[in-house]
Amino acid sequence: MAPTQPTRWLDDEQQRDWRALVIGTTLLMDQLDDDLRAAFGVSLAEYEILVRLSESEGRAMRMAVLADALRHSRSRVTHTVARMERSGLVVRAACADDGRGIIATMTDKGHALLTRAAPVHVAGVRANLVDLVSPEDFAALGRVMNAVADRLVSGHPDRDIR
Amino acid sequence: MAPTQPTRWLDDEQQRDWRALVIGTTLLMDQLDDDLRAAFGVSLAEYEILVRLSESEGRAMRMAVLADALRHSRSRVTHTVARMERSGLVVRAACADDGRGIIATMTDKGHALLTRAAPVHVAGVRANLVDLVSPEDFAALGRVMNAVADRLVSGHPDRDIR
Repeated sequence: MAPTQPTRWLDDEQQRDWRALVIGTTLLMDQLDDDLRAAFGVSLAEYEILVRLSESEGRAMRMAVLADALRHSRSRVTHTVARMERSGLVVRAACADDGRGIIATMTDKGHALLTRAAPVHVAGVRANLVDLVSPEDFAALGRVMNAVADRLVSGHPDRDIR
Repeated sequence: MAPTQPTRWLDDEQQRDWRALVIGTTLLMDQLDDDLRAAFGVSLAEYEILVRLSESEGRAMRMAVLADALRHSRSRVTHTVARMERSGLVVRAACADDGRGIIATMTDKGHALLTRAAPVHVAGVRANLVDLVSPEDFAALGRVMNAVADRLVSGHPDRDIR
């Protein structure tokens, strides 16, 4: 990681745009998190887990696969899912196939909460991001962040979905 | 925040780009954080605080102003600066002007660390973001995230810099 050539500093515009990414993302995720907590008592991380489970066969995923899909650490997902289990949104059980690994399954209560929360969450994503800018600029943001994700996932094969 | 009209769901492309932002940002910040921790023993949050202090008169800022500049909560910045003080990177003192508020000042050790870390950090921002994409797409990302930051800061006047 140590640079071997003279440092290519960011120019003023790049520096401003980089800071906008850091600060804008911080504010955006905090806002979406605040909205979900205020209306439904769940965090953004809990909401994202409900979404992933709802898209999976049987509304169930191995914890390791769930962590990889979200690009969160195993310990972070374990912590979040434990909280969700106490709230009755998911249940955990040992994997029947091989006795190893834990499966998280969304409960009916979790599904009902997701159904109520999704319109509010999407309205927030639109109001604070998608509908603020031109479709062309939003598509460019998508290209940039897909390139970032592709690079960093490929650089960390252990983070691939199993 | 509750929507009063039929939900305008994201289309497939918007959904993909939104997920790319969430996942790409998570991976990118984790990578930059890992790089700084491995090479210099500081987190990305600590690094950002050193940068802000280095740009300030006397390498010092009120804690409240520092939190606002970073768009972090007061409690988060208090926690991070306390850790940095234990590492000898900053010192804290009561504000001389009015006896209220706390000033964080970067030490010579903090400045020396920033001088060594900055080239590595910039190389990481380039390799994992700026140099991956066209200047036009990166500028579009900047426009999007500046729009997001402007909207969310103006919606929270208590977060303005004082």
